[in-house]
Amino acid sequence: MNDLNPADLRLVSHSASDGVTTSEFVLGDVTAALWEPEHAEPGTPLVALGHGGGRFRHHPSMTGRARLLTDAGFRAVALDVDGHGPRPRGPEDEKVVAALHAARRAGEPIGPIVEPYNADLARRTVPEWRALLAGLLARPEIGDAPVGFWGITLGTAVGVPLVAEEPLIRAAVFGLFWPSTLLDAARRITVPIEFALQWDDEHIPREGGLALFDAFASTEKSLHVNAGKHMDMPRFEAAGAVRFFERHLCG
Amino acid sequence: MNDLNPADLRLVSHSASDGVTTSEFVLGDVTAALWEPEHAEPGTPLVALGHGGGRFRHHPSMTGRARLLTDAGFRAVALDVDGHGPRPRGPEDEKVVAALHAARRAGEPIGPIVEPYNADLARRTVPEWRALLAGLLARPEIGDAPVGFWGITLGTAVGVPLVAEEPLIRAAVFGLFWPSTLLDAARRITVPIEFALQWDDEHIPREGGLALFDAFASTEKSLHVNAGKHMDMPRFEAAGAVRFFERHLCG
Repeated sequence: MNDLNPADLRLVSHSASDGVTTSEFVLGDVTAALWEPEHAEPGTPLVALGHGGGRFRHHPSMTGRARLLTDAGFRAVALDVDGHGPRPRGPEDEKVVAALHAARRAGEPIGPIVEPYNADLARRTVPEWRALLAGLLARPEIGDAPVGFWGITLGTAVGVPLVAEEPLIRAAVFGLFWPSTLLDAARRITVPIEFALQWDDEHIPREGGLALFDAFASTEKSLHVNAGKHMDMPRFEAAGAVRFFERHLCG
Repeated sequence: MNDLNPADLRLVSHSASDGVTTSEFVLGDVTAALWEPEHAEPGTPLVALGHGGGRFRHHPSMTGRARLLTDAGFRAVALDVDGHGPRPRGPEDEKVVAALHAARRAGEPIGPIVEPYNADLARRTVPEWRALLAGLLARPEIGDAPVGFWGITLGTAVGVPLVAEEPLIRAAVFGLFWPSTLLDAARRITVPIEFALQWDDEHIPREGGLALFDAFASTEKSLHVNAGKHMDMPRFEAAGAVRFFERHLCG
């Protein structure tokens, strides 16, 4: 995985609809989609979208955010995390997914399963994101664009170590994850961040989310808390994330 | 103070500039200003603005928020809290203000002075706000408008008991205050609220702000935390507050 060469990034298809061009890329085993406003200029800010657990690059949560971003003039890109979408699950992945479903059925805490599994997925995915971003920015039609990262749940588990390592990323929106596997990377992040948590999250203890927000070394950081459970994050948070990227990547 | 009659509300002057009409009102000893977009219709949503400690209805923090609101199509109204702006301070007010300045100079905590003093100001101001709002809504050009409240610091000390008592108010933006004098009223508030605190507030302990947010009984509530000290709240929070009122008072 670590020997991915950005120069191997290959455009496999593209289509245009309703003012937005969608391009499908592959890089080794990595499948990715790029959305852009028609006639986007080189240097247009690019937001990397990290999908949630069990989802993939074309899940409505990704295409919906991509649409908000292209409507605001951004490019957006999502990749499929290993074992997600078209990328096959290995036997270890299958074992974890089964354990997760069993814990859910039994009403047991899912953190002890999700945290180490997503840390493992992050180790696989961070080098893939870095190669993909390098490959995209090497394309003249994209050029030297300011880059942001936006992902909650698994997107945060991958995004926090990614943003800690990847100097291309200038601003990030995170949320809805436990602290323990992410604190060290969070302490190395200094770019502006927006972090969202749910006040009545049935999976992630309130104090854990606050501790993760506290750990970011960023001097510009905002926490958005909303009443409600894990899945109840209000839709207006997505519009707020777009405004966050407008403040930090544009102009 | 409690025998203010809304029918005594009197328009003393008005002026128009740059698409906004500013009207000055008096009601007993209470001085107030109303800002409205030219040609605003009856029923246009109205936001009550509570000023901060030591400020008054025409402080830039009030006229700036009023401008954001009228630009978004709202009416806005602010009154002067007793002892503020043109309303004379009594000897008790003077004593507290002197103690506050002494504590600031000595680097001592200001909470033990501000909390009880602002609770006292709230007792004086809540009936004034209620009479003012009743008087304004009785005017046919304003009519039966949805009402919001927006105030931080002293504006929150006054606004929390006001919103707990006044059923006209359907949504409120608060922030930057200690919990102890406000918890009981907060527990009686069920309308949507947005609450802002500063993560590195040198006056208000972090846990205190979180406890106050937690106390609101509202099922729709959002907390916005930003890195920085008491006075460092970013300007984008004001634009966010206007969007909050758009979600809850319009359409």
